[in-house]
Parts: sequence; C-alpha cells; structure tokens
Amino acid sequence: MLRTHTCGELNMSHLGQSVTLCGWVQKSRDLGGTTFIDVRDRYGLTQLVLNTDTDASLREAGRNLGREFVIKVSGKVLERFNKNPKIPTGDIEIGVESLEILNEAKIPPFLIEDETDGGEELRAKYRYLDLRRNPIRNNLLLRHKIAQEIRKYLDELNFIEVETPVLIKSTPEGARDFVVPSRMNQGEFYALPQSPQTFKQLLMVSGFDRYFQIVKCFRDEDLRADRQPEFTQIDCEMSFITQEDILNIFEGMARHLFKTIKGIELDTFPRMQYADAMRLYGSDKPDVRFGMEFVELNDIVKGKNFGVFDNAELIVAINAKGSAGYTRKQLDELTEWLKRPQIGATGLIYLRHNDDGSLKSSVDKFYNEEELKKWSAAMDTKPGDLVLVLAGAKDKVRKQMNELRLEMGTRLGLRNKDQFAPLWVLDFPLLEWNEETQRHHAMHHPFTSPKPEDITLLDTNPDDVRANAYDMVINGIEVGGGSIRIHDRKLQALMFQHLGFSPEEAQKQFGFLMDAFEYGAPPHGGIALGFDRLCSIFAGLDSIRDVIAFPKNNSGRDVMIDSPSKISEAQLQELSIKNV
Amino acid sequence: MLRTHTCGELNMSHLGQSVTLCGWVQKSRDLGGTTFIDVRDRYGLTQLVLNTDTDASLREAGRNLGREFVIKVSGKVLERFNKNPKIPTGDIEIGVESLEILNEAKIPPFLIEDETDGGEELRAKYRYLDLRRNPIRNNLLLRHKIAQEIRKYLDELNFIEVETPVLIKSTPEGARDFVVPSRMNQGEFYALPQSPQTFKQLLMVSGFDRYFQIVKCFRDEDLRADRQPEFTQIDCEMSFITQEDILNIFEGMARHLFKTIKGIELDTFPRMQYADAMRLYGSDKPDVRFGMEFVELNDIVKGKNFGVFDNAELIVAINAKGSAGYTRKQLDELTEWLKRPQIGATGLIYLRHNDDGSLKSSVDKFYNEEELKKWSAAMDTKPGDLVLVLAGAKDKVRKQMNELRLEMGTRLGLRNKDQFAPLWVLDFPLLEWNEETQRHHAMHHPFTSPKPEDITLLDTNPDDVRANAYDMVINGIEVGGGSIRIHDRKLQALMFQHLGFSPEEAQKQFGFLMDAFEYGAPPHGGIALGFDRLCSIFAGLDSIRDVIAFPKNNSGRDVMIDSPSKISEAQLQELSIKNV
Repeated sequence: MLRTHTCGELNMSHLGQSVTLCGWVQKSRDLGGTTFIDVRDRYGLTQLVLNTDTDASLREAGRNLGREFVIKVSGKVLERFNKNPKIPTGDIEIGVESLEILNEAKIPPFLIEDETDGGEELRAKYRYLDLRRNPIRNNLLLRHKIAQEIRKYLDELNFIEVETPVLIKSTPEGARDFVVPSRMNQGEFYALPQSPQTFKQLLMVSGFDRYFQIVKCFRDEDLRADRQPEFTQIDCEMSFITQEDILNIFEGMARHLFKTIKGIELDTFPRMQYADAMRLYGSDKPDVRFGMEFVELNDIVKGKNFGVFDNAELIVAINAKGSAGYTRKQLDELTEWLKRPQIGATGLIYLRHNDDGSLKSSVDKFYNEEELKKWSAAMDTKPGDLVLVLAGAKDKVRKQMNELRLEMGTRLGLRNKDQFAPLWVLDFPLLEWNEETQRHHAMHHPFTSPKPEDITLLDTNPDDVRANAYDMVINGIEVGGGSIRIHDRKLQALMFQHLGFSPEEAQKQFGFLMDAFEYGAPPHGGIALGFDRLCSIFAGLDSIRDVIAFPKNNSGRDVMIDSPSKISEAQLQELSIKNV
Repeated sequence: MLRTHTCGELNMSHLGQSVTLCGWVQKSRDLGGTTFIDVRDRYGLTQLVLNTDTDASLREAGRNLGREFVIKVSGKVLERFNKNPKIPTGDIEIGVESLEILNEAKIPPFLIEDETDGGEELRAKYRYLDLRRNPIRNNLLLRHKIAQEIRKYLDELNFIEVETPVLIKSTPEGARDFVVPSRMNQGEFYALPQSPQTFKQLLMVSGFDRYFQIVKCFRDEDLRADRQPEFTQIDCEMSFITQEDILNIFEGMARHLFKTIKGIELDTFPRMQYADAMRLYGSDKPDVRFGMEFVELNDIVKGKNFGVFDNAELIVAINAKGSAGYTRKQLDELTEWLKRPQIGATGLIYLRHNDDGSLKSSVDKFYNEEELKKWSAAMDTKPGDLVLVLAGAKDKVRKQMNELRLEMGTRLGLRNKDQFAPLWVLDFPLLEWNEETQRHHAMHHPFTSPKPEDITLLDTNPDDVRANAYDMVINGIEVGGGSIRIHDRKLQALMFQHLGFSPEEAQKQFGFLMDAFEYGAPPHGGIALGFDRLCSIFAGLDSIRDVIAFPKNNSGRDVMIDSPSKISEAQLQELSIKNV
C-alpha cells in the first residue's frame, strides 16, 4: 500500500510514529505562518500541519495544494494543541516531513461537503464527485452492511443464493418489459426480468427448498421518486411451508436488520386484513406510526337533506387531534390542496370541537347541535380537535382521505423518520378489474394461490376471491410482498383462464412452468422485498435515488455517461433491426 | 412448516420420536409384504417402511406411490434392521402412520439419479428436473458457499460491495454489446455491461477505496463450453495500491477459498513473466500441474540440410517422459490429430530414447547418432522417453505445441482434477496488433497502464510495451485478470490515440472517465475473476454450464423457457424499431 494508515485511524496511541497517509485535500488554512491541511479518505479526516519548523519548499508546496488534490504525505504523529473531540482523529495531527501530489484536481463544480451548493442536475452529471460527500457515501456503506446482514441471516437458515438468468423471455403479464434483440436468433428478443418469479418457482420444483437472491430487476415504466428502471430485489422462496412460516422468517429478518444495523428492537409486527386496511386507512400500505383512523359516518349523517352526504356512497372522517386552531384560511387552503387533480376531491367538510366545548361545522345549515354531538361521539373528539370529512364514491373517497390523513400526519409531526412502525397486510384480493383491458388482472401476479375456501367464488364473484398474499409495510411504504403459490397445473390453468388467456396462449407463455407442476411440484411460497426501498428507509430518505450509486433520472437517462445513446448502423445491421 | 424434520437429519438419537417429513419419492420396493420407500429432499434421503403392522389402506397407498411423487409422511423413528452406513440417516427408518400425497408426478423423461440416462438436450428442456440430481444440486450449493466466503473475506478487508448499473452505454472497444432499445428515449439504446470497468474506476475517483461486486456481465459473442452470453464476475478495485498489494490480497482470497471450501492449503503462487509463459508453454495460461516445458532446438538442429527445420523460425520440442512405447500407428494418429484444422500443424517429428539406450528419430536420414545425442542432451531424455518436435513460424508453432503438450499431459494422466496448480502470469504486453481492423487493440483493456519505463516505446516499438497487467491462472484456466489503471487524463488520451481513436471519438465515448481523472483521481487498480470458472474448477468440471442454474445452449437459447422469442408488434412500435 502507498499508505501506512488510513485517514480515520490515528489517535494518541500512535504519538511519535512515522506514518504515511493518502487522500484528498478537504481544505487548508494558514494561521500565522502555520498551514493546516485536512486530508480525507473513506475512513475519516486527519489534520496535517506545516509550521516554521518545516522545510520552506515543503511549506510552499503545502500552501499551494488545491481542494480535492490527491496527496501522499509522510510525517510524525503529534499531539494537537486545539483538539477536536468531534472526530476520532481529533487529538492528533501529522507534522509533515514529505509531500507528494499523486494527482491534481480542477476546482470541483460544487462543494464537496455534507451540505453542498450543487443542484440535482449538476450533481448527477458529476456523480463521482457527489459520491465523495459523506451523506451519500454513508448510504452506500449502509447498503453494503444491510446486504451482508441479509445474506448472513438467510444463510444461517439454510437459504441458498442461486443466480437466475437476466436474459429471459418477454411475457404479456405485469409491467412493460425491457427487451434485448438477439443476434444469433434474428428477429427474436430476450427480455430483462421484472422479477425471477418463474425461475424461483422452478427451483422449488427442483427441490432447492429455500432460495434467495439479491438481484437486479427491470421495468420499463415511467419513473417516480421511488422507481428506477433497474432496481434491486431481495427475492426469496420456500417449500413445504405455510403463510405463517414466511411471515415469521421475514419478520425475523426485518427485526434482525433493525437490531444489527440500527440497534432498534422492534415489537412483533401487527397484522391487518387488506379489507381493514382499506376501511381504516384507505390504503393497502397504511402508515401506522400514528392513528387518525377513518370513521365511516354514513349511518349518522345521512337523511338530513344534505345532498352531498345523501348522494354519497361513503362519508368518511378523521379526527385531526389538536387542530381546532385551523383558521378559515388554512381550511380553504387544505380544501384547495385536496381539489388538485392528483387527489381530485370535490370539497372538504369539517367539524371543530372548540376549546369551550362548543361544536362548529361547515354544514351547520343542515346539522343542529344535537346531531353534531353524534358526530363528535363517533369521532371521539375532545376540545381542540378538528374532524375532517370527505364524501363520495367509496374507492375514490378512501384514496382521497388516505392522502389527507398522511398530509395531516405530516403537518402534526406524527411521521418521525426515526420511528419505525411495521405491519403485515394480509388477505389481498386475488384479482382486480382493469378498465383499460376490460378484464381481470392478477393483483399480485398470476402465480398467487386463491384461498381454498374462495375458489368456488371465481366464477360468481371473482372480485371477492381472497389470495394467500401478504405485504410487509413499514411507515406507509410497501417494503415487500409475496404469496403462497399455485403448485397444481389445473388450478394454474384455471387462473390463466380467469385472466383472459386462451389455453394455447397460456401454454405458449407459461407452458414450461405448468409442465413443471406435473413432475412433482411441492407446495411453496415466497416473498420479494424492495432492497432499494429498504435501504432508503434505513437511511431516512424519501427517495431511493441516493441509496443507488449510479441512478437514472426521471427520463431514464444516466446523465453522467450520457446513456442511452445512438448505436452504429453496423450494430443495428448485425441485429437485423432498424429505427422507425 | 409442513414437516418437523428434513430428510437428512434423523438418526439414532431420534428413536421413538414422532416425526413428519416432506419430500420426493426416490424409489420404492416390496420385499415379502413390506414396502420400503426412499423419500428425498435437498438435505438427504430417509427410508420409510410400511409392513404388516401398517393399516392396509395405508400400505396400498404406499405401494401406489410413483417416482417423484411429492409426499408428506408421519410416523415413528425406528432402528433399521439392515443399516446403510453410506448415508447419515442410514441407521433409522420411519414406521409410516400417515401419508399424504402433496402432488403427483408424471414419469420423468430421464432418470433422476447421479448417473442419468438423459441426453444433454432433454435435460436442458427439463432443467428443473436435472437440477434435482445430486451432482448438479451440489454444484449450486458449492457456488453459494464460495460466494458467501468471498463476501466474508472481502468484507473483512474493508471492501464494500456496490451495485453498478446494468443499463449502460454501448462502446466500440471490447467484445460485442447486447443492446436494449429505449422507449423513453426513442432511437437510442442502452447496452448491457461487459464488465463494470469504468464504474468501478469512477468509484475509486469517488474515494470508495476498496470496492467489489459479484455481478452479471454480458457478451454477445459466439459460444463455447466455457462461454455464456451472461456470466458472473467477481469484480474488484482498490486505491492507493501497487500491483504487489493486489496480487497478495487476491492470492489470499484464492487460498482462503481453497482452505475453507476444499480443505486444501495452497503454497505461495509462483509468478511467471508473460514472455516466459509463451516461451516455455506457448500459452499465457500454462497448466503447471506438470512440467514438459518447451525446449527450443534451433541452435542444435539447423544446418543439416533438413528443409523443414532450416526454413522454420522456431523448432520446439517437449519430452513426453515414458512414452517411448508409442507405436508407429499411435504416432501417425497423433500426427493426424495435430493436422486437424483446429490445430493446423504440418507434421510431427519425434525422437525415441529406447529402453536399450539407443536413439531413433523420424529424421534419421538427416541426423546421425552423434547429432541425435545432442537432441537427447538438450531434452534431458532417459531410456523410455519420447521427444516430440514441431517446427514453423514462432507464434503458430508455440500454439500448436501448447495443444500437443496439454494432450500428452492428459494422455499421461498428469492433469489430475484434484490437484491445483495456481500461478500469476505478469507483465503482459499492453497492445496487440489486430489484422482485421489493421490497428492495435488493448490486450487487457484501454484503461490498463503501461509500465512507466516502457512509455517511450509507444511510438517506436508499440508491441514491446509491457503493461502493469496480471492474470491468475489455475490448472491452465485463466481464472481472472487485472491491471493497475491509468489515472491521468493525458496518459489515457495518449492510450486512446494509440488505439486509433480521434480525440473527439475518445471524448464522446469515454469523456466522463477522462473528465473524472481531472478532479482528483487516486492511483488505483483491480482485478476481475470469472466466478463461473472458479466454481467449475472447485467442482472439477470442464464446462461452466453445470455451475449455472439455468444456462443457455450454444445458440444462446434457453430451451426450457424457449427464449429468445418473437415479441408483439405493439412492443416493437412502442420502441420505434422494426425487424428487417
């Protein structure tokens, strides 16, 4: 090594030693003839000192170092006059005896500090410089640590990591595939996997019993803050298990990670029916760091000649405790926020429980005090509370109220990033109706098994069929989901039929899996956790972008390497494709 | 779990316990009214017994189980009458009390035994059944274990695993890229990485100091036994190091793996100059499990009016010790083998050192006994030895002799799969001339640094410039290779210039890296090891195919899922491409 130590390890126990360090110049300053230079590497920061005892040309060289110059420096470990208790090397400094510039550096386009002055685009273009900043580097160190702990946990439970192929086959289910033209099989394409779903099921048919993989997956969909065209999944599958086993093992994994990485002992995860999650939170991924559950007021508020309520399928309310102080202006502003196209509410009704005990609503015209008292009782209000009410079609109004609840939770400071509230959401519907394609789609994926007692409903009430499917949710974020799979050819064929596949289509697309089910497929099930999201929760970030070393922007571009890009005519010809 | 134990763990300590097992019926046999069934899972095999004490309908059910049926069986652990010391569960059997068929199985298309009757194609189509066989499953278990040990070793040395992107940019250097049309950026393409080379170098510029990744890479090249379109690399990079540091750390990793996985303590790896490897073995990846080094005979054999030798650039020989018994027919057959187009030798000359001490050559017309004694002395022959001689143009004849040496090593049983002979090959040439493109190509890749003392030769003798490049070779297989990289923009630009890039092209393709070198790039270097190859060496296999769960065939097809395949017109339209 060019160095004897890193910039993060020297302390009083090294006093007097001759050492060599390598790193980047963080900053330098002159103080009355003495030059102090902070040199930085991944491991920390060490102060160098050149003073009047130092050789004049060496002092000159030290003074001329620019920010981010890469240097190699040798000298003695000295005790510092002004100690810095904030860093592990803060007790010492290096009295420089020799200095070599390993590489010069132009002035960086933005400050390489914890708080930088660089905008998002500039930092993306110079990602390699942004990655030098402590917060980003720490995210990636954290990510590495989480991955190591996951592998340790699963390995100890006899899971084996098996790599499944990246060049697979395009299928019509799920999201849009990225495809790869084949040169050796002209006119044909590979697809990049949206998940290794069918392969991990085949591994169960092969008897691998417990499989996992931390694996890149791909979806060609329009992007959002928590979506990337390529993302990483912790993909797992087990044989000879029940849903209970999967919940226990992966709850155990999450608890292990919180304990080893963050030193937090989580309680047993609460479990919630999908139907309850929708009823109480309007979401299949409720943020249960705070209550503010929905209360349905239909029975109480209907029949008082208030058309908005009388014509509504659902009237639902939350109690924003302690918010009675909201002014008319604030309430108007909240109403406008709800009317934005992203949410699309038509109006907001409120009931204020004043400090003096009186009740005041925005619909006093229709409801007298006696009636408002019923509202108050249903909502369990106390003086100082504010009840917010939305009305409309059930699914729509639940979604709107979910947004409102989260917004009020944020405003009331109930969504603390250092608090973690996990839960399992269970018993998802098997199918969901798709207006666009005018057929049912699988809510999870076509390989999810229906609850045996619900199979007979497939023909009569397909929307009521529940699946053996479950999601892990933390702080309102879906961290992962899975299901007990179908392992019977006939049931799988029935499922494809209900998804609108002809038997020929089903065989063409998924024949390999259905054939496999005829050669001794064990009962099996699994889960896939979003690794990027998990890391972002641990890092306290809203976006997954900064737990990824080289993310793409919202147009799917890597602006640093300028990709995607044109390819040559010769390449297109070899692949027998052309741009149109 | 549906089971209380696996099929591999019950022994005498469990006698009398009530247990439940799940698994596949390996085989069943009736012996005088008693039915024995072997049930198998990933962990082992357990014998079930149904005898005259067993309920009649249960016995009937047991007798009707077919091979590969998936069953769940409960009963008591009993001591076996005929113990089987070959398996860990061989002392016990399960007296069956209940039996449930979890899934039936059709008769498999080939035997699911260690030695199968299935041909390669059939097994590829039913890969999920082939994966049930012990040898294949064990390869994947081994692979998992090796990966875990690699991560452990590198993690302890402060390497952090960073995931680099899969959707990157096509570049003209190296092998052919797989490309991915972009829907969001029409007319443009991503490329799949042949290696994360530039990204890992950028991570060094970012100060990550020690990086690794076990990562899928892609090359759209025609396939051979040890090539797959997607393969896995152990990719590593370090900053502030010399070549010596890399050799030590990764030799240490290989030694750690051999010790923990195979219980073998390897000696320090020998090191060999590239030039010596070519001179003594005709290969940059010599198999040094055996000697049989090349001896160059030019000085001894020229000038005796034997045109083949007099006109040859190089006359090179090996001593196939103990092979003097080769008959005329065997020698003719060996000559024919050498003349095949794959090798292309024009003829083979031999010298036999007979048991009686006499010397006999195939060119006695031109060389008398005195002269043959000089050959014998040069080749250090003893009675019973056979010297094989090839002559021709240097590069060609070395290649041919390499093939002959390996063939004779195999025939003489000198290439034992349980013996491991690693070495480092050092000081590769920086450049190699490419006849097709009529320019120099980088022998390793364009980011490899030349030896500083050789830089001045770039203009005058480019073929003589040595690189700071190294390969790890085990048993004649290149396991990995790496180099100390260029970290200076000017030198990198000079390198591209010598590779025939205009400054504009170089900037367009690799500008992001050259720009990065201007913002404080540390000296760095690394290595990439072929993970599939490493696993195949540990598994004692010639091909990498059976250390990969779902490999592709020689046409790049996955015959199990039938991929690649046609995609829909709608998909092509969305991507704005068409087949031509």
